[in-house]
Amino acid sequence: MVRRFKLTIEYDGTLYHGWQMQEGLATIQGALQEAIFVLTGERADIYVSGRTDAGVHALAQVAHVDIRKELRPFQVMSALNSLLKPQPISILHAEDVAFDFHARFSTLYRQYRYRIINRRAPLAIEHNRAWRVVKPLDVALMQRAANHLIGHHDFSSFRSTECQAASPMKHLDVLQCLQQGDAIEIMAKAPSFLHNQVRITVGTLAEVGMGNRLPDEIKTILDAKDRRAAGQTAPACGLYLEHIGYPV
Amino acid sequence: MVRRFKLTIEYDGTLYHGWQMQEGLATIQGALQEAIFVLTGERADIYVSGRTDAGVHALAQVAHVDIRKELRPFQVMSALNSLLKPQPISILHAEDVAFDFHARFSTLYRQYRYRIINRRAPLAIEHNRAWRVVKPLDVALMQRAANHLIGHHDFSSFRSTECQAASPMKHLDVLQCLQQGDAIEIMAKAPSFLHNQVRITVGTLAEVGMGNRLPDEIKTILDAKDRRAAGQTAPACGLYLEHIGYPV
Repeated sequence: MVRRFKLTIEYDGTLYHGWQMQEGLATIQGALQEAIFVLTGERADIYVSGRTDAGVHALAQVAHVDIRKELRPFQVMSALNSLLKPQPISILHAEDVAFDFHARFSTLYRQYRYRIINRRAPLAIEHNRAWRVVKPLDVALMQRAANHLIGHHDFSSFRSTECQAASPMKHLDVLQCLQQGDAIEIMAKAPSFLHNQVRITVGTLAEVGMGNRLPDEIKTILDAKDRRAAGQTAPACGLYLEHIGYPV
Repeated sequence: MVRRFKLTIEYDGTLYHGWQMQEGLATIQGALQEAIFVLTGERADIYVSGRTDAGVHALAQVAHVDIRKELRPFQVMSALNSLLKPQPISILHAEDVAFDFHARFSTLYRQYRYRIINRRAPLAIEHNRAWRVVKPLDVALMQRAANHLIGHHDFSSFRSTECQAASPMKHLDVLQCLQQGDAIEIMAKAPSFLHNQVRITVGTLAEVGMGNRLPDEIKTILDAKDRRAAGQTAPACGLYLEHIGYPV
């Protein structure tokens, strides 16, 4: 009897070419599929809520997989964790779910967190885990800029030129800039995001925070509907897929 | 003219054999002394506030060094950071100080933070940066146990059998157990600590948190004045030297 398992997964994306399987490259999906094959003997398809790019981390990515082999959720979790060792990929939870659950299509919202360390000194402890920005950032200005992006907009200026989405229209629920000491975190929550949307947003907000752009320029950037109007794409290493929301 | 520089240093201790220089081994002091030699041509002695063991991290270690070469603090910081690259050692601040400042002897207090992740799943993001404890910990019990250690005591039971300190008498100012989600942090502040004191304390508090010992057993452990009475030494990877206090 086939059963569907929902997996909640943490990973350090530093040494991976992103989530999606690619021949001959280390990917999260590839590592996971290999572990599932060793455990079950099955070449199972893995469906994921939010594909992450190379270097992006996840605190709670969600995927689902259908498995024939008779296994309890607890066994799936502990066996996969053993098989994944010593790779920095950890199954936080495995859950037996109904077949109407789909990791991607059942998603209500996705929440990302972007971590900046605003200081001159290089990062020793958080190397590859945050973006170091040397120029002082004014978080109040960044939040004023961010407020222009909340709501329903054409985000053409904030998506990668390689973005495959049919429409650039997206609804952004939350975009919050928080500061604690020299750490600045930007939390973004939306039903879905365009490719590189969070990183381009953060790169643009950082330019506002440095005083290179005014907060109100965000409106002009949105209106331009042109990637070249926005700021740089912030580095992958600061981005964390933090939470996926599903109907309860 | 010789000048004294106070250096505040962050490092990821994972791949180092601790602070103290040892022939043929990677150490923080060795890496720093080498960088200072390349910068100045001087074989300077480096004095540190708190030597850390292999695998222990520092968020703000403090050291001082006397340099003859004419350099401004800003140059010392940026040149050392360039020379230390790509090692996970970062000079956060360099400051020109008077000769009555001594990184070790001027210290008023040292503050350590120990980070536990209390969950079953292995650590992907915080691998080597926290101690994973699988058994659920009751933080309220841990704090009750911790309270017995605050104040002036003979900490013989809480020091490594290799500890070189002349006296086991120490004053512990703060020992606080904080919980946020599955992260538990133990903050310890004292004028000085015995060898492995924080790690043995954390290992013992964890046994209380698991329900293997009662909070009041801490009194019996103190009275025993015997290392074997206390719990295991918690792993180095969870320990951070967080702050050193000096007279202002």
